[in-house]
Amino acid sequence: MLEALSIKTSAREEIVNITEQIQRVVGARGVEAGMVWVYTPHTTTGITIQEGADPDVRSDLLAHLRHLVPRDGRFRHAEGNSDAHIKSALIGASQAIPIEQGRLLLGTWQAIFFCEFDGPRSRRVLVQVMGNK
Amino acid sequence: MLEALSIKTSAREEIVNITEQIQRVVGARGVEAGMVWVYTPHTTTGITIQEGADPDVRSDLLAHLRHLVPRDGRFRHAEGNSDAHIKSALIGASQAIPIEQGRLLLGTWQAIFFCEFDGPRSRRVLVQVMGNK
Amino acid sequence: MLEALSIKTSAREEIVNITEQIQRVVGARGVEAGMVWVYTPHTTTGITIQEGADPDVRSDLLAHLRHLVPRDGRFRHAEGNSDAHIKSALIGASQAIPIEQGRLLLGTWQAIFFCEFDGPRSRRVLVQVMGNK
Repeated sequence: MLEALSIKTSAREEIVNITEQIQRVVGARGVEAGMVWVYTPHTTTGITIQEGADPDVRSDLLAHLRHLVPRDGRFRHAEGNSDAHIKSALIGASQAIPIEQGRLLLGTWQAIFFCEFDGPRSRRVLVQVMGNK
Repeated sequence: MLEALSIKTSAREEIVNITEQIQRVVGARGVEAGMVWVYTPHTTTGITIQEGADPDVRSDLLAHLRHLVPRDGRFRHAEGNSDAHIKSALIGASQAIPIEQGRLLLGTWQAIFFCEFDGPRSRRVLVQVMGNK
Repeated sequence: MLEALSIKTSAREEIVNITEQIQRVVGARGVEAGMVWVYTPHTTTGITIQEGADPDVRSDLLAHLRHLVPRDGRFRHAEGNSDAHIKSALIGASQAIPIEQGRLLLGTWQAIFFCEFDGPRSRRVLVQVMGNK
């Protein structure tokens, strides 16, 4: 039941709309009522559900996370990406979305986003669907 | 299996205890062992599990979120509610709680809260229950 | 299907790797494909998925959370641990991880961590497994 999606990010920080890919997996599974989990197996990324209409909402989110967790903070981790790990812990590694009549029950303004905090890189997202057919 | 609850908030920012309503849905479903998901379909709200006893915990949380994400920050989103979107991303759109013997397995001090960050408004919360009867 | 783990923390703030204990529960359940939920029933703790290799990542995370939510902030809650409640709300009470072929589908660098923000104390973690045998 598990599906892996490939995502290629193109900047150090980027928020990528993956709603359609998740809907496609849900549709292919044929689950009428249940839940889907969108999970990132990386430690410098996150999954969030946010407004999909105005791209300024995403750039405000990225900019404010940079303000809260500056890249050049006093960190011990030698790889220079502690900010990305901390942003990842604040946003979270997964989101769960209800399914009804075979479709994601997102609100009118909601979309599912993959958050890259240490790109550009090739990334994977795991999608698990559970429920009744 | 999915249920929608209606919530009316009465201030721009408010943390509403919805534990009893969630327990009622879980009880009505007759699921003995499993999980419940509490999901907000809005992009300027969140769901959190926190202490239910002392209301000062919730006011401290709201006040500190205002400090971390000031409403008058330098944001691009023209609607003037970027702070609410960012708080929503930090708190998260859903919570999952285990069910045993037909009851929420919350800790002694835990309660489930709907977080309004851009009210007052009429809001909805979706509740999904999965498990064995 | 639900299991409770005991954790003894040894400092006010500590991040404890619980990956092996979670894998043991998943293995004992015999679920081949599904999900596991790791849930803390306390209000001054959290569960996060982060890098398990370099311990500096965890100490950077704890130090930066202390910076974002100082213990001596202006809080109303009289118990003096509002910072711990707020960190708990930012990190979250649970994590969900996919299972395939009876094993946690964590990424190469990922591990599951219990976050103590108001220890040292004796704590519990609840583990729920759902899926197909």
